[in-house]
Amino acid sequence: MTDSARYKNMANAIRALAMDAVEKAKSGHPGMPMGTADIATVLFGDVIKFDAAAPAWPDRDRFILSAGHGSMLLYSVLHLIGVEDITMDDLKSFRQWGSKCAGHPEYGYAQGIETTTGPLGQGLAMSVGFALAERMLNARFGDDLVDHHTYVLCGDGCLMEGISHEAISLAGHLKLNKLVLIWDDNGISIDGPISVSESGDIPARFRAAGWNTDAIDGHDPVAILAALERAKTSDKPVLIAAKTTIGFGAPKKAGTHAVHGAPLGAEEIAGAREKLGWPYLPFEVPAEILADWRAAGKRSAKDRDAWLARYNALDAETRAEFDRRIAGDLPTAFFDALAAYKAKLVADLPKVASRKASEMALEVVNAALPETAGGSADLTGSNLTKTKGQEAVKAPDYKGSYIHYGIREFGMAAAMNGIALHGGFIPYGGTFLVFSDYARPAMRLSALMHQRVVYVMTHDSIGLGEDGPTHQPIEHLASLRAIPNMTVIRPADAYETAEAWEFALTHKKGPTTLALSRQNLPAVRFEVSADNKVAKGAYEVAAAEGLPEVSIFATGSEVAIALDAKKLLDAAGHPTRVVSVPSFENFRAQSDAYRAEVIGVAKVKVGVEAALRMGWDEIIGSDGIFVGMSGFGASAPIELLYEKFGISASRIAELASVKLS
Amino acid sequence: MTDSARYKNMANAIRALAMDAVEKAKSGHPGMPMGTADIATVLFGDVIKFDAAAPAWPDRDRFILSAGHGSMLLYSVLHLIGVEDITMDDLKSFRQWGSKCAGHPEYGYAQGIETTTGPLGQGLAMSVGFALAERMLNARFGDDLVDHHTYVLCGDGCLMEGISHEAISLAGHLKLNKLVLIWDDNGISIDGPISVSESGDIPARFRAAGWNTDAIDGHDPVAILAALERAKTSDKPVLIAAKTTIGFGAPKKAGTHAVHGAPLGAEEIAGAREKLGWPYLPFEVPAEILADWRAAGKRSAKDRDAWLARYNALDAETRAEFDRRIAGDLPTAFFDALAAYKAKLVADLPKVASRKASEMALEVVNAALPETAGGSADLTGSNLTKTKGQEAVKAPDYKGSYIHYGIREFGMAAAMNGIALHGGFIPYGGTFLVFSDYARPAMRLSALMHQRVVYVMTHDSIGLGEDGPTHQPIEHLASLRAIPNMTVIRPADAYETAEAWEFALTHKKGPTTLALSRQNLPAVRFEVSADNKVAKGAYEVAAAEGLPEVSIFATGSEVAIALDAKKLLDAAGHPTRVVSVPSFENFRAQSDAYRAEVIGVAKVKVGVEAALRMGWDEIIGSDGIFVGMSGFGASAPIELLYEKFGISASRIAELASVKLS
Repeated sequence: MTDSARYKNMANAIRALAMDAVEKAKSGHPGMPMGTADIATVLFGDVIKFDAAAPAWPDRDRFILSAGHGSMLLYSVLHLIGVEDITMDDLKSFRQWGSKCAGHPEYGYAQGIETTTGPLGQGLAMSVGFALAERMLNARFGDDLVDHHTYVLCGDGCLMEGISHEAISLAGHLKLNKLVLIWDDNGISIDGPISVSESGDIPARFRAAGWNTDAIDGHDPVAILAALERAKTSDKPVLIAAKTTIGFGAPKKAGTHAVHGAPLGAEEIAGAREKLGWPYLPFEVPAEILADWRAAGKRSAKDRDAWLARYNALDAETRAEFDRRIAGDLPTAFFDALAAYKAKLVADLPKVASRKASEMALEVVNAALPETAGGSADLTGSNLTKTKGQEAVKAPDYKGSYIHYGIREFGMAAAMNGIALHGGFIPYGGTFLVFSDYARPAMRLSALMHQRVVYVMTHDSIGLGEDGPTHQPIEHLASLRAIPNMTVIRPADAYETAEAWEFALTHKKGPTTLALSRQNLPAVRFEVSADNKVAKGAYEVAAAEGLPEVSIFATGSEVAIALDAKKLLDAAGHPTRVVSVPSFENFRAQSDAYRAEVIGVAKVKVGVEAALRMGWDEIIGSDGIFVGMSGFGASAPIELLYEKFGISASRIAELASVKLS
Repeated sequence: MTDSARYKNMANAIRALAMDAVEKAKSGHPGMPMGTADIATVLFGDVIKFDAAAPAWPDRDRFILSAGHGSMLLYSVLHLIGVEDITMDDLKSFRQWGSKCAGHPEYGYAQGIETTTGPLGQGLAMSVGFALAERMLNARFGDDLVDHHTYVLCGDGCLMEGISHEAISLAGHLKLNKLVLIWDDNGISIDGPISVSESGDIPARFRAAGWNTDAIDGHDPVAILAALERAKTSDKPVLIAAKTTIGFGAPKKAGTHAVHGAPLGAEEIAGAREKLGWPYLPFEVPAEILADWRAAGKRSAKDRDAWLARYNALDAETRAEFDRRIAGDLPTAFFDALAAYKAKLVADLPKVASRKASEMALEVVNAALPETAGGSADLTGSNLTKTKGQEAVKAPDYKGSYIHYGIREFGMAAAMNGIALHGGFIPYGGTFLVFSDYARPAMRLSALMHQRVVYVMTHDSIGLGEDGPTHQPIEHLASLRAIPNMTVIRPADAYETAEAWEFALTHKKGPTTLALSRQNLPAVRFEVSADNKVAKGAYEVAAAEGLPEVSIFATGSEVAIALDAKKLLDAAGHPTRVVSVPSFENFRAQSDAYRAEVIGVAKVKVGVEAALRMGWDEIIGSDGIFVGMSGFGASAPIELLYEKFGISASRIAELASVKLS
């Protein structure tokens, strides 16, 4: 790679593919790939442990393109090194319907795309999860099986986002020395030179967070290689500040924001071809240059062979456990333990807050599943996310399974995405439901990427009492239910909470948000059921005595209130049934027949939830009665809040009676 | 104040009130007020320019309690210095229904509460807006009228949150040297010693962001006073790291997380009284000590008198303009200009993207209103938020009216809250609608605090095309509509966009989110209307020819599609009307009669919006047809996306026809 002509050609192949693909798509971001092509060439050519023939090999180094708009950099490199998933035709269909090469890298579209990026800062924040999962898995399986780096490439945008602070301070605190961040320091943002909005000393900022820093010319392959090699021996996470020219090679637009987010145009592209010494046709990569790239893609085959030899030398049990962990499958012992726990619940019928019930379920879960990686954003004693004997993850041994994420809700959520994507762990983490707003952009990515991440969101309504409106979620159930592929579960008692955890852990295709009460809730489930009713989303928890006149639908802490209302209505001669609706999403997934049966045909339908009506018409109809909130909460003791906001059995009964009459 | 006994007594009055109020409420956070009582005593006793008799005086220094859980610190001080709004009875009703002393400080509950705090980091981030507004207003009215400091008190939580990074880097960049942040460095977080999750060098971090830093013993009044005086002459924003003991005075719990968020208990309180030398009854403040506090509250009366003299010496026009700016009233010239602009629109009928229409409206707005403070989170050329001749706000002159917020969506939103709360400006700021998720916690506070902040959210649907699912808002309209007191407006053409801006600027009781298209939209309004139809939320934009069989309800870019569908249905013999629904919230606020008339009685109701159905049943009923999205988007050109996701005139017509048959 110090053969400069060869290196230059390899880098220019990236530049040409990027500008050609953006030009063909008439849309995209050529500036970043052209500016960082030299870095990517050295990283993939000489440094990264990545076998193009086995892009899912568990011990590969990870490469995260946090500046996701530069997606053509990633697609070009993956194609050039020979990842079969991305062909030249895929590059030519950049940004078109059904293409693997979407506008921003989308996880699951092709191998080698380690994560979805584009929302700035999150690639970096997920990389902290990747790097932490690597260390934690290493602590369990040793250097022979797990010993790899996480390389991240980001721009100024990622570093200006607040999430970057949470990420780098967490990484520094945890001394994640196998995390290497390359900052594409091109001095340009969309509004112009970066100086219009930033004047900080970025390396000093990283050093203050416990990182080592390095600074290089991002177009000098010798310097790039040296810096990457130095980074490998660091005792801390490393920032490499790489000075680059955005749109390197574009004769007129290089170094300006004009090259950031739009096609260069035919003339500028022609000029770039000349300036770069790249006389080839669009999408043409000469055989010799492609051969150099393909050789780079095979460079790590020997590492993988050696790894396989070590793997095969292990005892069968260790191998099986490692495979299970990587596959993300659950052991049968877990289901046995959970069944025993459920049986105990219907014997004990504990009256506990669902956050407490969650802790009780987690005691069973964590005892049965070594792969859970728990945590909280500094609310451990409130979220009740830490179980007996669970130890904190600390540098340098990483044997623990509980992460003190600090007051970093967004950083926690993004790190959990990284942990889930890395594999080997099932992450869960807690905060107050109202602060899901802080974590929301990462929760959206969990959903978009179909990752099994469990959000333990406690203090789920005005039921938290005196902390008042800033801490009382009102719109959060609706707004989380709005995220496609997010399953929101609001369990009514300890039994439903156990079912909720069972669902969340077995649901491999998406994240789950558990909305849990601060206040105690009586048992509403008295028998062990063969099926998981939470997984069905809604079910009749109390039947009517006779033909029902009223159906009350409720979730979580309001199910008990609904059951009280049933008593009042029954006594008044209005046979009433109660349906628990722990999950709208799961209920929506049921058959029409099941849905119709559960919704029923009672004349009056009432929805009860200490939250907004939004979304409820799907169940109670637009003519249904809703008992809940319509605005922000207030600071007062819980009993008074429920009374003042009219969420009570007597009000339900009254409204239903009026409608019946 | 160097009289140490007097000082000590004043500080202990805060401590006693805080522990007594928390004890009486059986809930709250005594540790922070007890730990920072010395700081608050020096700040309010000797330093801050705040006249308790005139807590709304425009040139007062602002005090922001970013660590809002320590609310009893603020309430105690406001009571002690003599702000009439907070009586001893109010302190005794801490955290009770209807109390001015809510769990966390709530803006509007009592004078002297400058902002709502509690969601961590946001007080600090709003303070950047306060400090910026002060400099910008100073640039317009001079030192005689505007010359004050913003003091912020925060804890580790605020500094761990990502938002703190956006805030401090923006403040450093803008050289807001009248911003003084006191960090309550007590070494404790909820999960235990701060070392469980943080090991950064915080002062170094601030210096890297362009701040000056100082470090003191937070219990030494001489040191506190000296640091605050030094801070006043700084050329940069200042961090004062104040080492404190959380729960100072509590004999067993001080210095531990046990004192953070729960009542101390009778025994510990008795011990604290003894240790502090405070032998008085609960809520008793001896007259002499109260007198010292009241004297402190009168200390700045002379400053206010001097200010009033300067104010009265000004010419009537300047005074009137200053008063108008502080009151937040709009000049009549604005309404005249807007009327002329609307007349021009119906003459020109421009086919432009609504983001472009927003820019056109802003040209009129900014020319008429010197009080707008615009900006964008580094998407100026996409959000189209900067108008001709608008200059960037830059240190040190601050004369400009456009803020390059950088890639800091959350920081921008929080700063806008601070600007609005400070007074004198109407802030607006742009990003992509999908990234409202990043800004959401501050948008919630805009709504909770009833602040006039305008969110310019462009690229409002899959209509943005190739950038793909990470950039395409799907759930965002629903989730923003879910925030109580947030008005979401999705205008259909340039005329509705003008009405939207008119509404947003005249709506003084809450924030407005404008959801604006990337793609061009044809005109759907052809006549000037006397009333603002966007302010009504929904209206018939095209009547049926004959008795309507179908009503189509649509918003924004889908109104034109609905009008095309009407043509198809009309031609097929199904008289169809189209209703534009720019704002669900405004429509909800109309009379039942108006709502019923607009919704109408056509057999088939269809809702059309390139977003989720959630919330639409309120208008189309749960048996209505909805044409929109049900999951994440995709990366492809816009026309193909609308076709593939079935949002088209032909599909609307087909579904309506099937239902009619």
